[in-house]
Amino acid sequence: MRRRIAVLTKFNSPLEIREEEIPPLEEGEVLVELAASGVCGSDVHMWKGKDPRTPLPLVLGHEGVGTVVDMRGDKRDIFGKKISEGNSIIWDRGVTCNRCYFCAVLKQPSLCPNRQVYGIVRNGCYATHLTLLPETKLLRLKGELMAGQARDKEDKTDPAILVAASCSGATAAHAVELLPIRPGDVVVIQGPGPLGLFCLAFAFAKGASEAVIFGTRADASRLELSRQFGPVKTYVVEDSSTEARRTEVMDLTKGIGPSVVIDCTGTPASLNEGLRLTAPGGTYALPGIATPVGEAPVSVYEDVARKNVRIQGVWVSDTSHLYQAVRLILSGRFPLHKLVTHRFALESVMDALKVVDSKEAIKVVLLPGGD
Amino acid sequence: MRRRIAVLTKFNSPLEIREEEIPPLEEGEVLVELAASGVCGSDVHMWKGKDPRTPLPLVLGHEGVGTVVDMRGDKRDIFGKKISEGNSIIWDRGVTCNRCYFCAVLKQPSLCPNRQVYGIVRNGCYATHLTLLPETKLLRLKGELMAGQARDKEDKTDPAILVAASCSGATAAHAVELLPIRPGDVVVIQGPGPLGLFCLAFAFAKGASEAVIFGTRADASRLELSRQFGPVKTYVVEDSSTEARRTEVMDLTKGIGPSVVIDCTGTPASLNEGLRLTAPGGTYALPGIATPVGEAPVSVYEDVARKNVRIQGVWVSDTSHLYQAVRLILSGRFPLHKLVTHRFALESVMDALKVVDSKEAIKVVLLPGGD
Amino acid sequence: MRRRIAVLTKFNSPLEIREEEIPPLEEGEVLVELAASGVCGSDVHMWKGKDPRTPLPLVLGHEGVGTVVDMRGDKRDIFGKKISEGNSIIWDRGVTCNRCYFCAVLKQPSLCPNRQVYGIVRNGCYATHLTLLPETKLLRLKGELMAGQARDKEDKTDPAILVAASCSGATAAHAVELLPIRPGDVVVIQGPGPLGLFCLAFAFAKGASEAVIFGTRADASRLELSRQFGPVKTYVVEDSSTEARRTEVMDLTKGIGPSVVIDCTGTPASLNEGLRLTAPGGTYALPGIATPVGEAPVSVYEDVARKNVRIQGVWVSDTSHLYQAVRLILSGRFPLHKLVTHRFALESVMDALKVVDSKEAIKVVLLPGGD
Amino acid sequence: MRRRIAVLTKFNSPLEIREEEIPPLEEGEVLVELAASGVCGSDVHMWKGKDPRTPLPLVLGHEGVGTVVDMRGDKRDIFGKKISEGNSIIWDRGVTCNRCYFCAVLKQPSLCPNRQVYGIVRNGCYATHLTLLPETKLLRLKGELMAGQARDKEDKTDPAILVAASCSGATAAHAVELLPIRPGDVVVIQGPGPLGLFCLAFAFAKGASEAVIFGTRADASRLELSRQFGPVKTYVVEDSSTEARRTEVMDLTKGIGPSVVIDCTGTPASLNEGLRLTAPGGTYALPGIATPVGEAPVSVYEDVARKNVRIQGVWVSDTSHLYQAVRLILSGRFPLHKLVTHRFALESVMDALKVVDSKEAIKVVLLPGGD
Repeated sequence: MRRRIAVLTKFNSPLEIREEEIPPLEEGEVLVELAASGVCGSDVHMWKGKDPRTPLPLVLGHEGVGTVVDMRGDKRDIFGKKISEGNSIIWDRGVTCNRCYFCAVLKQPSLCPNRQVYGIVRNGCYATHLTLLPETKLLRLKGELMAGQARDKEDKTDPAILVAASCSGATAAHAVELLPIRPGDVVVIQGPGPLGLFCLAFAFAKGASEAVIFGTRADASRLELSRQFGPVKTYVVEDSSTEARRTEVMDLTKGIGPSVVIDCTGTPASLNEGLRLTAPGGTYALPGIATPVGEAPVSVYEDVARKNVRIQGVWVSDTSHLYQAVRLILSGRFPLHKLVTHRFALESVMDALKVVDSKEAIKVVLLPGGD
Repeated sequence: MRRRIAVLTKFNSPLEIREEEIPPLEEGEVLVELAASGVCGSDVHMWKGKDPRTPLPLVLGHEGVGTVVDMRGDKRDIFGKKISEGNSIIWDRGVTCNRCYFCAVLKQPSLCPNRQVYGIVRNGCYATHLTLLPETKLLRLKGELMAGQARDKEDKTDPAILVAASCSGATAAHAVELLPIRPGDVVVIQGPGPLGLFCLAFAFAKGASEAVIFGTRADASRLELSRQFGPVKTYVVEDSSTEARRTEVMDLTKGIGPSVVIDCTGTPASLNEGLRLTAPGGTYALPGIATPVGEAPVSVYEDVARKNVRIQGVWVSDTSHLYQAVRLILSGRFPLHKLVTHRFALESVMDALKVVDSKEAIKVVLLPGGD
Repeated sequence: MRRRIAVLTKFNSPLEIREEEIPPLEEGEVLVELAASGVCGSDVHMWKGKDPRTPLPLVLGHEGVGTVVDMRGDKRDIFGKKISEGNSIIWDRGVTCNRCYFCAVLKQPSLCPNRQVYGIVRNGCYATHLTLLPETKLLRLKGELMAGQARDKEDKTDPAILVAASCSGATAAHAVELLPIRPGDVVVIQGPGPLGLFCLAFAFAKGASEAVIFGTRADASRLELSRQFGPVKTYVVEDSSTEARRTEVMDLTKGIGPSVVIDCTGTPASLNEGLRLTAPGGTYALPGIATPVGEAPVSVYEDVARKNVRIQGVWVSDTSHLYQAVRLILSGRFPLHKLVTHRFALESVMDALKVVDSKEAIKVVLLPGGD
Repeated sequence: MRRRIAVLTKFNSPLEIREEEIPPLEEGEVLVELAASGVCGSDVHMWKGKDPRTPLPLVLGHEGVGTVVDMRGDKRDIFGKKISEGNSIIWDRGVTCNRCYFCAVLKQPSLCPNRQVYGIVRNGCYATHLTLLPETKLLRLKGELMAGQARDKEDKTDPAILVAASCSGATAAHAVELLPIRPGDVVVIQGPGPLGLFCLAFAFAKGASEAVIFGTRADASRLELSRQFGPVKTYVVEDSSTEARRTEVMDLTKGIGPSVVIDCTGTPASLNEGLRLTAPGGTYALPGIATPVGEAPVSVYEDVARKNVRIQGVWVSDTSHLYQAVRLILSGRFPLHKLVTHRFALESVMDALKVVDSKEAIKVVLLPGGD
């Protein structure tokens, strides 16, 4: 059996579309035919050679949803239900060792030093097919993961809207899980990309009463979409001053400040504004920092010690977060399906990377099998 | 200045409507003209003499919303904003000592042995006016506690829909705060009275994807209302078997069981069903037990130890819970205003107690100042 | 290569001592020569046929410490250090699937439905050698796991004192981890067996200032030992009344009650006394219930709801708990080495079971390789 | 009745010793004759005019222990026991409003904007007598707060060793309460002053197996004392390189790093070393930053995001922390009494400030009533 792949062989050069024989499955492996593969901002970084870990050649793509076409051995989903050929599945992009201090003692597998990620340290989802390692955690995407009446309908969930669960959705679940949101709280999110919008959805899902989003002019369509998630006030940072934003957020929070501020910009440029806004006793979270960005100066007394504030780093995610993201998307409570603004064939992968790089798109998805 | 009150002078006898002079305010006290007073199921218990703590004579009523008509000294709301005459306010029904082990070390003021509750250990809200003790925690009900666009509208919040925040709303906030709900979880609630419906709203607000409610035939209208809160499946216990309910809930939760079960029936009769349903690693909460109900037999190995389950008692609430309940109601996210099914003049208080006792009503409110 | 084993072939009949060929190792397996095997109270239950899960024939023994004598493939301890022949190791007695809802989403592998336990569902440690499954979590027992100066000494840790870490030590770690002990708290422990004594050590290690232990006359030597762990007050239940114990514990806790009560008796007979003692806002934990024990009547209002009390079931343990137990023993802070009161050769296993059954011993250890 | 006080009237000038009439007590007030008053490093800052909040004239001193000599009204300790003249007491140095968002909703009274602190915003303990406000939280220091056998001895606790509970002891309790220490963990503390030594004691009390302390050459006697608290390894920062310390701490923690690092130096100079040491998934706490210290550059990706690390600001303390500190001192488990290296008469207050400023002392105490 053969598959088509888009391979990164040289940084900053077009990915090569190749066809190759799929090796026979080992015991416990699962062969998936990809229905949709997400294109993530960090794929662009890797393509540009900015992520020093990137091995060459590499099939990029750490987000995928697909159909089981072959497997060796008895495979089960997280609920112990048998996986069969034809099942639509999603999987944890990170395969961890389950045996180290971080997996077994700290129970934070996202910190496992042996974590292997499809599309980052081994071949990924820019392909028609992907072979999953035996230890990969699998979720079936039947209607059964849906809530309420949706469950009873025939499953017509578009796989494209689920791919984002793998990375930005799961990372947002991880961030918000670490944040002490109390029903009624106001949450501020810096950066309305896919990660920011998932953080917004999870913040509301965990009880936030209202949210404030800061974006740039280039984020106009994202800010517009964010207002459909609930009571959201948006600011374009170029069109308002830091002081004006502070005054309005303080007013909204009765002079207390937001108990949670989540930085999803990916740069530390907004750290000082966000940290200063954070309420005494509150938390400032950093799920968006995925590559080295240098140092940020922190006013240790005014912004941290005096306010009893917590700064929380957030590194990737694990299966529990993927599960939450899938459930949240399938619940239909938030317009998360509107994140997918662009779809491309595998062969047009360079166009896909381009619209991600330009921030013209919100979420871009490859459809390796065609529409 | 004079006020009218409805006084319990003898158990099981009609409350007496009296008029009396309001004593002059002491330093720090606030005089409120009541706009709405809630009639709680436990008022019926007290009227029947089933609560041994009840001092006679007593003005019942621990839930109230009203307008400040007088005060002595500088009064502030929780945000430090000055309270003025004419402000619409709600307050924590429990006045605690702030100085004991439970208030100051454990920081669970709901357990303060010196807690004084309006309408339970001192005169309450079945009255046109109520004098609040200096230590009472005050929340102003201006549009500012509302979320999003609602905030900008003129404040027309009906005080009747806010009274339930004082008791069932705050107690539900307390219960759900103690429960480890993860986005995507299924929650089961036993008993769809005001407490159960608030628990339902808080469970969704904290991330539950779906809920299952058990009620009796007498609860028909409550079950109907509950389905408007989100993806809710309801069961009439007389019309289905324990085993059938278990099978369906297990099916809904992929054989795991609900991670959280909340008993709001007020009796331990449903404890075994609920505890047996609770997922391994889950929590069974008991916010509804407000009076002695005897013993319930617990299968210690099967239902608790072997499943690593937690049984959580929940006793009343504090200001943090009241705040959450008020914010939740004012957010408009759930149809909590539909809880108020009956309104009565103060003089018709006996009719009010009657419809509560018969379970004909969901939430009953007195309007001491007239409509 | 051959090994000797003690096999349960028929309930209530002497275990058979046999010799058999050790099967060749599969990839990832480790062959251990057992230095010490613990005899647990539940082994006696299994021998009597009281545990319905027990498959026959079975090599009992879920607690073991030994030396690596062979392995296939690259094996690592939890810190990623290479395991070599000759290393002294301990391992998690439960082998979990790492892939199910309980392992990967809830992150409570002790609830994994696929958990396999050596000596309970597959052959265990009543043997000279044991083959460990590839997924078994391994800890090396070099001086490096010790604290402070002990670390620098040559490692002469007696393996016999470490076997209890596998089961009662790890379960105690699990229980105490779930309990909100605050420095200065008073803890009550019912039942001073190995589990109770480990709970005592962990309670002190987590900040308890003093402890109260209830035992029976048969527990005299255990109660005596418990007083060497710190400020401990002991009561013989036959020699004092429930009311007297309550009065003294209340006096000790200034009328508040102990914030944590841990029942390590293994029966629910003491549940009501313990639950009644528990302070408002406190927790009553049940780590000792390992087999069906019937129902216990609970005063739902007085002992749970009114006091906002939590009842916490505790089921077995995972690698994080084993790690804590090993570290605690090796820290030398508590006289846990005094738990081992009896040592037997493998051939004398029936004598070992007998002294456990009679409660004459505290902890009994088999030395399969001889002294 | 008259009292002697040491008054700060002009920054950098000797405090004036005056005698003045004690005003008659208001309802609820308590008059204390001070047995011991602590001299804190921040008193030196205030004397130098470095704390912009300092009102003049001011009686410094926020740490005190004394005997009740008069009171108005019924006064109770935190356990509800009546306070009588002659009782030895300690009190929460901060008097909070109990009614604001931070007191009543967030339940973090240390963040109360209305918090009044004796010796900082109102007159304090550099005096023979102090009048306590009615809302002050009071702890009696009878043997009853002691653990175990100590309880039964006549109470001879030296008040001088208890004063530190008020500030550094309580702040350390607050810091360690926020830190997820697991039995067996290694903790690193930067700065072995009174705050650092209390953090050390609390870290051990909460389960740390070993600790590493970094100090300067001037800290020699403090480092020496720290080694009496348990398995402690000390480093003089001038005598070792950052890299050497890192190598040894990594070795001690098997390459993982310490799960908790506590900076008690009061400056951000050590922040980068500490943050870099912190294990993935760990916490870096900042209880020692009590005055503005400028900005510290933080490597956001490497030291926070990539490691999922938490930076935790810690601001002062509340009654729950004072309670823990008093219990810890009275438990006698750690040599905390050795912190008091210098005692002075009230008249020698300038000598007291001098030895604190020079870091020659560990803890300095005034004895206003003489020895």
